[in-house]
Amino acid sequence: MNANAVATDRIYNFSAGPAVLPESVIEQAQKDLWNIRDSGIGILEHSHRGKVFDRVIEEAEADCRKVGNISDDYAVLFLQGGASTQFGQIPMNFLGPDRIADYPNTGEWTTKAIKDAKKFGKVNVPFDGAAENFIRVPTDADLEGKLSPNARYFHYCSNNTIFGTRYPTPPRTDAPLICDASSEMFSRPIDTDRHVLIYAGAQKNLGPSGVTLVIIRRDFAETANSNLMEMMDYRNHIKNGSRYNTPPTFGIYIMGLVFKWILEQGGLESMERRNAAKAQLIYDAIDESDGFYVGHSQSWCRSHMNVTFRLKNPDLEGAFLKAAAEQRMDGLKGHRSTGGIRASIYNAFPRAGCETLAQLMRDFANRHG
Amino acid sequence: MNANAVATDRIYNFSAGPAVLPESVIEQAQKDLWNIRDSGIGILEHSHRGKVFDRVIEEAEADCRKVGNISDDYAVLFLQGGASTQFGQIPMNFLGPDRIADYPNTGEWTTKAIKDAKKFGKVNVPFDGAAENFIRVPTDADLEGKLSPNARYFHYCSNNTIFGTRYPTPPRTDAPLICDASSEMFSRPIDTDRHVLIYAGAQKNLGPSGVTLVIIRRDFAETANSNLMEMMDYRNHIKNGSRYNTPPTFGIYIMGLVFKWILEQGGLESMERRNAAKAQLIYDAIDESDGFYVGHSQSWCRSHMNVTFRLKNPDLEGAFLKAAAEQRMDGLKGHRSTGGIRASIYNAFPRAGCETLAQLMRDFANRHG
Repeated sequence: MNANAVATDRIYNFSAGPAVLPESVIEQAQKDLWNIRDSGIGILEHSHRGKVFDRVIEEAEADCRKVGNISDDYAVLFLQGGASTQFGQIPMNFLGPDRIADYPNTGEWTTKAIKDAKKFGKVNVPFDGAAENFIRVPTDADLEGKLSPNARYFHYCSNNTIFGTRYPTPPRTDAPLICDASSEMFSRPIDTDRHVLIYAGAQKNLGPSGVTLVIIRRDFAETANSNLMEMMDYRNHIKNGSRYNTPPTFGIYIMGLVFKWILEQGGLESMERRNAAKAQLIYDAIDESDGFYVGHSQSWCRSHMNVTFRLKNPDLEGAFLKAAAEQRMDGLKGHRSTGGIRASIYNAFPRAGCETLAQLMRDFANRHG
Repeated sequence: MNANAVATDRIYNFSAGPAVLPESVIEQAQKDLWNIRDSGIGILEHSHRGKVFDRVIEEAEADCRKVGNISDDYAVLFLQGGASTQFGQIPMNFLGPDRIADYPNTGEWTTKAIKDAKKFGKVNVPFDGAAENFIRVPTDADLEGKLSPNARYFHYCSNNTIFGTRYPTPPRTDAPLICDASSEMFSRPIDTDRHVLIYAGAQKNLGPSGVTLVIIRRDFAETANSNLMEMMDYRNHIKNGSRYNTPPTFGIYIMGLVFKWILEQGGLESMERRNAAKAQLIYDAIDESDGFYVGHSQSWCRSHMNVTFRLKNPDLEGAFLKAAAEQRMDGLKGHRSTGGIRASIYNAFPRAGCETLAQLMRDFANRHG
């Protein structure tokens, strides 16, 4: 079938996460659930220390490195607990009562990351977008003069799912850079070498919920605090190749299939081109609506993953969502903390769905404008 | 097909975990992966805050309560990180420099739990099975006089996967009881009301790896330490019904199907009867072998989930495993820390597989005895 369309018994799923996966990945998983590689055992039921899973996790890691062009200076880890666990695990490992880190605040998730970091050390917030309702991220000029001279690290969220903003490029700082890339991981090329740690909950661009991709510089991990509970110590997971304990085997398996799919699609440059074009279809419909639709983000830092907007007349939003549902589009309601409309259009979301939404936006504006 | 047999393209999977699942559960999952409940969206791709998943998690919790006869005094949580995370999370929540807990040591997992607990408070080990290579658990008489007068809690592992021992009944103590039931959860009735906390990584009796069932008394959770990192604070998960952050949705979904399957099988009394009979088939083959096979556990505390034994002549173990593989039996190699043979025969493991193994044991002993 056409990779840009959707199977007839499936709908356009604009969910912010867990989110749409490539249909070829799901079809493969359906088979392997029963019996993977003629082993007579399904993927859910294989020991994490057996030969079949050895191959699954080794290929997942190798393909991840290929997709992200990640050198061996970095460990690639498959952990549990989502980005929310990283919010605490990072400062637990790297902060302390006498240490400070920079945390620009660009939305709900950085707010949570800051809350956890303060429990372990000092936090400097060089930019706080809360006052203007997170309509943008900081520019390098905003940050100038605001950074801590001896920051242990600088933590930022490269794409803000709820508000639909993103950093066009990583912020400029001398501190070791840590990135929460949960909602845009592998949607565009990422400069791993500029970072000491990149993490992403899988459930947007990479796979199912329940597995977190963590890419961490080995020498940075070695500088962590000691006497941590074992599961929070990155070094344990590095030493054991993500198998310190039983890992989320199925999530790693799906992530591995998604990495292969990204490579088949031409890798990250290709993903970026497609994602930019998909997002543009919807942003054009906003910008050409004469104010009928109002985008949330400032234009220069608009997300390519989460397109957020509202209707000038909020009373029409219910009718809009209903019209979308009639055209087999689901998951467009904005986050409970912001309202409005949010179209999450991750890597696996088909272009035809963006076209259908943009067309509906024009038709709806014509009918009600 | 016959629920006691195995489909012709699948084999007998004695894996200690991740482990065999009911085939009816896998078949249902194969369908729902593509499109669950005619929603046009697969189970992996549904928002954890949407109506379809609402129903999945609500039914999983309700069925869990039904299976375990769990009252509303307890919260039922679906967390991440496995038992290994609980090893640290429990003392982080409930210990402190001036507090002590009792931890009998009955194997590798309690050893790890003790290691983590010592980072947060004082640990009393009233019984240490290490010297006799964990061939048994303590009796109540062993513990008498050894317990801490003011223990914050008493932590035990009800079934020791690696060594094949189990507590026939929960240990007698006045301290609040915490149970690691990972490798036998819902394989027999459990007296929840005697415990303040019961936890189990799912990947043995309950579902795939990556989700942990935690049953915790609400009033006990309220006594936890403050200022914890958010994801380690049980109260956050209780308050948010396991959806403080994005939970492992697929794992919860599978666990829910397994709970329904247990209810269809007649519940925990029925599971216990079947499991006892399945284990007996193999223990009989050991006991009737005239010493050709040597069981690891003392008889009175033998596990019904993990049958561990070695061959008197260890040089024959390779040939035994090969003969088993020829009869489509996999996963029988003992844990890397103990060697020998281990047959893990969880709830979903078919009786026919135990019969096949017992028959092989007799035939093999006759050939080589």
